[in-house]
Amino acid sequence: MDQEQREERNKETYGMLKPCLERAMALQTALILFEWDNETLAPEEAGKYTARVQGALSEAYQEIMTGEKIKRLLEQCRKETGLSEAERAIIREAQEEYDRLVRIPPKEYRAYQELVAESARVWAKAKEQQDFAAFAPVLKEIIFYQKRFAGYRAKDGQKLYDVMLDDYEKGFSMKKLDEFFGLLKEELVPFLKKVTQSRTEIRDDFLTGDYPEEKQRELAEFLAEYVGFDFKRGVLAQSAHPFTTNLHNHDVRLTTHYKKRVDSSLFSVIHEAGHGIYELGVADELTQTLAGQGASMGMHESQSRFFENMIGRNEAFWEPIYKKLQELFPKELGKVSREEFVRAVNKVQPGLIRTEADELTYSLHVLVRYELEKMLIEENLNVEKLPELWADKYEEYLGVRPQNPAEGVLQDIHWAQGSFGYFPSYALGSAFAAQMLQFMKKSMDFEELLRKGEIEVIRHVLKRHIHRFGKMRDSRQLLRDMTGEDFEPRYYVEYLKEKYSRLYQTE
Amino acid sequence: MDQEQREERNKETYGMLKPCLERAMALQTALILFEWDNETLAPEEAGKYTARVQGALSEAYQEIMTGEKIKRLLEQCRKETGLSEAERAIIREAQEEYDRLVRIPPKEYRAYQELVAESARVWAKAKEQQDFAAFAPVLKEIIFYQKRFAGYRAKDGQKLYDVMLDDYEKGFSMKKLDEFFGLLKEELVPFLKKVTQSRTEIRDDFLTGDYPEEKQRELAEFLAEYVGFDFKRGVLAQSAHPFTTNLHNHDVRLTTHYKKRVDSSLFSVIHEAGHGIYELGVADELTQTLAGQGASMGMHESQSRFFENMIGRNEAFWEPIYKKLQELFPKELGKVSREEFVRAVNKVQPGLIRTEADELTYSLHVLVRYELEKMLIEENLNVEKLPELWADKYEEYLGVRPQNPAEGVLQDIHWAQGSFGYFPSYALGSAFAAQMLQFMKKSMDFEELLRKGEIEVIRHVLKRHIHRFGKMRDSRQLLRDMTGEDFEPRYYVEYLKEKYSRLYQTE
Repeated sequence: MDQEQREERNKETYGMLKPCLERAMALQTALILFEWDNETLAPEEAGKYTARVQGALSEAYQEIMTGEKIKRLLEQCRKETGLSEAERAIIREAQEEYDRLVRIPPKEYRAYQELVAESARVWAKAKEQQDFAAFAPVLKEIIFYQKRFAGYRAKDGQKLYDVMLDDYEKGFSMKKLDEFFGLLKEELVPFLKKVTQSRTEIRDDFLTGDYPEEKQRELAEFLAEYVGFDFKRGVLAQSAHPFTTNLHNHDVRLTTHYKKRVDSSLFSVIHEAGHGIYELGVADELTQTLAGQGASMGMHESQSRFFENMIGRNEAFWEPIYKKLQELFPKELGKVSREEFVRAVNKVQPGLIRTEADELTYSLHVLVRYELEKMLIEENLNVEKLPELWADKYEEYLGVRPQNPAEGVLQDIHWAQGSFGYFPSYALGSAFAAQMLQFMKKSMDFEELLRKGEIEVIRHVLKRHIHRFGKMRDSRQLLRDMTGEDFEPRYYVEYLKEKYSRLYQTE
Repeated sequence: MDQEQREERNKETYGMLKPCLERAMALQTALILFEWDNETLAPEEAGKYTARVQGALSEAYQEIMTGEKIKRLLEQCRKETGLSEAERAIIREAQEEYDRLVRIPPKEYRAYQELVAESARVWAKAKEQQDFAAFAPVLKEIIFYQKRFAGYRAKDGQKLYDVMLDDYEKGFSMKKLDEFFGLLKEELVPFLKKVTQSRTEIRDDFLTGDYPEEKQRELAEFLAEYVGFDFKRGVLAQSAHPFTTNLHNHDVRLTTHYKKRVDSSLFSVIHEAGHGIYELGVADELTQTLAGQGASMGMHESQSRFFENMIGRNEAFWEPIYKKLQELFPKELGKVSREEFVRAVNKVQPGLIRTEADELTYSLHVLVRYELEKMLIEENLNVEKLPELWADKYEEYLGVRPQNPAEGVLQDIHWAQGSFGYFPSYALGSAFAAQMLQFMKKSMDFEELLRKGEIEVIRHVLKRHIHRFGKMRDSRQLLRDMTGEDFEPRYYVEYLKEKYSRLYQTE
């Protein structure tokens, strides 16, 4: 059999795999639409009934992805040559999904799913009542299952937390993350102390006020479009917590919320638009396949935070459009200069809540979670000790101490959803973004582009190096291919120190 | 094997059928959500990509519903005793769906689906350009397939149009419908002439005006809730054409549009709420099964038109709430009395457009379509002759003649979607509603209930006799069980004549 014949045959095997995967993806897409609908529109009492539909669709998905047919086809495909990079990536992702799903006994998986379906409610109530003890038993159970499942999946003595981390970010095991967070702790904790002791006073009282929701909505739509979100292929809706989701690269959906503090919705929209622009940029040959989403959680967060911070909190960004803001809110911002506004939205205020953190303190919130997750998974930390440890770490790194668990250990939903190993990607994303910025500044006048409103040039670079590849390459590979360097967290530290040394007198 | 053992075994067979059907229903529910999303929210360019997802889900649905497994289980189940009425209904519906899907060669079905996916666009463009010739070739092809498929499915010399009619309304073949429409033609055409020649003048200019959309939305939500639509289990959104859909009996969705003419949205909301209340009333044991929707198109329309006309256009209905309307629109309705308002929304105005028709002329629009469909399917009427014939019939029955095909034969999307046999159910629904009203008036003071705002009493009767049964019984059976009589169209004619004789001096 010559080369050409062999390639022909391979294509046939892949051709048989394709409709299997297409059906599996259709089920996934339906599940995404149900989630979107639940968060944005579905009536109050629909949940219990719709959950059955979601359950049946999930089951159908798992049946396809762990079936004998797909197992056999994947085996054949893996051996083959003559496939494109995209096709190889799709096969690799399918194989990983197969491995992930097939190792966990279905009975245990169902019990776990039921636990998690319930736990978000338990968590929400415990948070509302500031009662960690009400959540602790559920959390213990979730950790039990998480460790058990990681155990099924661990390869050659792999640590359990490394298995979990790998689900969100390939190439970032504890070893790598210890270095990363070690650097942040060493550099940023003392730097933050200097900043908070600085005599520089930044006014931000005008950000809170009577900002009419209708006008905020108009601003949100304007900003999303201005940074390049394409409303022909996307929508913006409202939900309790802002998020981004997508059915494929021609249907990407953002949500936001509208608060009394105008910069909350404003930057959350730019943030979500960053996620959205990533998904809109995935190549057509990848969309609607298992390799058709952003490369990883961290890479996704790099794009959202690049748009939010490197672009949106940059003074140059506001030069062409600050007038628009003043026109929308003449009463609140008419007498506030652009310089004052930009300083206000960059004010450093060490606080208790991660999602409200400024750019400088953000990664320290993540650091706390990383250290605690490691202890929970690798050191059998007793769940009961979490609130105290949480408070101690906040005091040490951020200089603030929660007075109750709602503003402490109960603030995030992630653990209630069984997401262990997810948090680090929030900090990694910021660091990826800083490395990208450093690279881009070598070849272009970044601020000048913002001043001219030519964001499409920046978007083009990100699409060319990152977006179009979807999951074809992992985040470290993408960073290497783009910047010519492996992941280098020093750029992130330098970026923050340089930016905040300009804003705050620290001597 | 004794009775009890046999029942035990049957339950087992049914128990095996259930998960099959559950998965099929989950796929259907996902398809419904995609349709809803397309009509209300999805971005402009998503369609082509999302269509692939919908295609894959449809294919999965068909595979389940025509598989060997379901065939075998249905055979076993059909022979069994000891099942409840609901279970028997579910099995019957599944068998019908199997028969419907299995008889049509998959290749032809796919070709037809592609044709129909395209034809709505061709129709919309033809309508916009008032160019019937652009739509005629597609319509011919659709009719070709419709007849071919009906031929595959016809039993023992059944006529093709009867096969089609049966899909929408069991027990109403051409024989029955000829009687029904014959009566309407005989009675209503001359009666309408009298009404239009009456000297009674009804003012309705105030219905058109500057009705702010925000206020119309407030009114729409108020009215839907007032007639009994439960917003904990439903939502109201906006779309180009009002419609109702549902995921199950705890998630029912209405849409409306807002026009310059206030009664357009107002009555369309009450109409859609009628559809919605029907679906909300389906019993829990039926929802999320193949028997978990309204009994038929006609029975559905009976509920929407009962709410819209028998309730909503009744003067007594407005007694407790007309003030609310005046408060919402003081400029437009502040000086219009309730009596004037109710007369205006009942004004008879023979027109060209079915969806804008008053209660008296509505069924004559349907009559035209019924006669033409019969000719197209049973008499091989040449499609090219449609516009002329359409115009002639409108002139004969309604006294008006379309000047272009957009206001004539191209006005409805139904034929472009391949829905032949659907139209009669619109008129049947109105007649069912009149028969129900006649029955209810025997045992309750209908107007008094409306005057007191006690619509829940009326709703209770409809739920008890109609809604809760879902598809368990067909429409004629439901009518018989409720009213003690077979379908009797004379009640409809009497209702219309009595109502409009009161409104218009006809001597």
